Amino acid sequence: MKRLILVRHGESEWNKLNLFTGWTDVDLTENGCKEAFEAGKLLKAEGFRPSICFTSYLKRAVKTLNNILDAMNMDYLPVQKSWRLNEKSYGAIQGLNKADTAAKYGDDQVLLWRRSFDVQPPALDMHEERSPRMDARYNELSDAEIPLTESLKDTIARLMPYYNDVIMPALDTNDDVLVVAHGNSLRGIVKELRGMTNEEIIKFNIPTATPYIFEFDDQKKLQKEYFLGDPDVIAAKMQSVANQAKKK
Amino acid sequence: MKRLILVRHGESEWNKLNLFTGWTDVDLTENGCKEAFEAGKLLKAEGFRPSICFTSYLKRAVKTLNNILDAMNMDYLPVQKSWRLNEKSYGAIQGLNKADTAAKYGDDQVLLWRRSFDVQPPALDMHEERSPRMDARYNELSDAEIPLTESLKDTIARLMPYYNDVIMPALDTNDDVLVVAHGNSLRGIVKELRGMTNEEIIKFNIPTATPYIFEFDDQKKLQKEYFLGDPDVIAAKMQSVANQAKKK
Repeated sequence: MKRLILVRHGESEWNKLNLFTGWTDVDLTENGCKEAFEAGKLLKAEGFRPSICFTSYLKRAVKTLNNILDAMNMDYLPVQKSWRLNEKSYGAIQGLNKADTAAKYGDDQVLLWRRSFDVQPPALDMHEERSPRMDARYNELSDAEIPLTESLKDTIARLMPYYNDVIMPALDTNDDVLVVAHGNSLRGIVKELRGMTNEEIIKFNIPTATPYIFEFDDQKKLQKEYFLGDPDVIAAKMQSVANQAKKK
Repeated sequence: MKRLILVRHGESEWNKLNLFTGWTDVDLTENGCKEAFEAGKLLKAEGFRPSICFTSYLKRAVKTLNNILDAMNMDYLPVQKSWRLNEKSYGAIQGLNKADTAAKYGDDQVLLWRRSFDVQPPALDMHEERSPRMDARYNELSDAEIPLTESLKDTIARLMPYYNDVIMPALDTNDDVLVVAHGNSLRGIVKELRGMTNEEIIKFNIPTATPYIFEFDDQKKLQKEYFLGDPDVIAAKMQSVANQAKKK
């Protein structure tokens, strides 16, 4: 049996402030660190033993992974980081309050920016301060690869080469593979694995810091998938994410 | 200019309890985490910008590195981990109190085990619970590579292939390279870089969580070396390490 373990990062400072985050490199809250540590304890107790880990270039995902590995006493595991696992870029609305944005543009427009498959928020300028082009960590990216805004479709498109060439092949030589990333980059993986339509994936919310397990047979054929943890807590976390854009 | 940044991990639980640690995978104390975070803030303030990091398989080093990168907002950096950067194995005295061991065997014998160049402490058995052979993280090592006890000479011998083949070549393509490891594995690197004799390196103490900077020209010829931070604090830290085996 092979297992792919997906974990969305714990609560971040901007989740708490209800701001659009995207590629902004905000920190985890203390609660977010605790959520991550608890996820690690759960994985350990349930017998998961990853031998390789993947995460994004963003602090909230890296620190979620660090806390999981700390809790599992597996700090020594190899970790590969990629910008392709980053959250969807929210372009020029990054840093804006979700409720204020909803009040200004209407719930429907904000829901489109957050939850449509192929509508992009307004774009950043390539050379403004918030542009990834101005951040040394993205020096390896060409201008064409730098996202100034993204729809979910765009996020999935830049994720897929990494999923196909790096993550899924890792299951050939590792029984348990751990991926810690973001709501929308993980949606890309879940959509592919479950064969979901564009409409289905938009409606599907991934709860924070909750291990989402995909079990495969030795031919990497998907056998089953489930969330690890208390079903009531998981349902509450999923609802909380769904409500964010409506908060006043 | 090229710079190699060496950092010894912050205070660990067993430093605090004054136990021989070696390959035992003990955690940092809260103070150790803080020391590491402060080291990261200092590196950032002084303009260090590592682009690759190396650390050991031991939690106290990995978490020191994680805290440094967190403080620098460089959590995204690539990190390579190797057992060759692990602390010297103290064999069968791992887990024993340093003062009790000194009382039982005498200060001189303990000083030999801690600070001689080529005297090994008593060895572990290959298949006892404390043996690295029983720990899945070392599955990649052959029996011959598994250290059941080590002198400083042994530690340096297993460190050098990694130093020569991985760390020093990294300076070809990176201006700042960060290595977070342990008192004795770092001694191996310092001895090589400074051309110290066996006697000189034994007497040389590396303070915890204090960036030790080696500057090279573009031909990787050493230009200068220095500790980063308040000289009085650094001197106190070096003295504290030297006194550990004499504590009652």
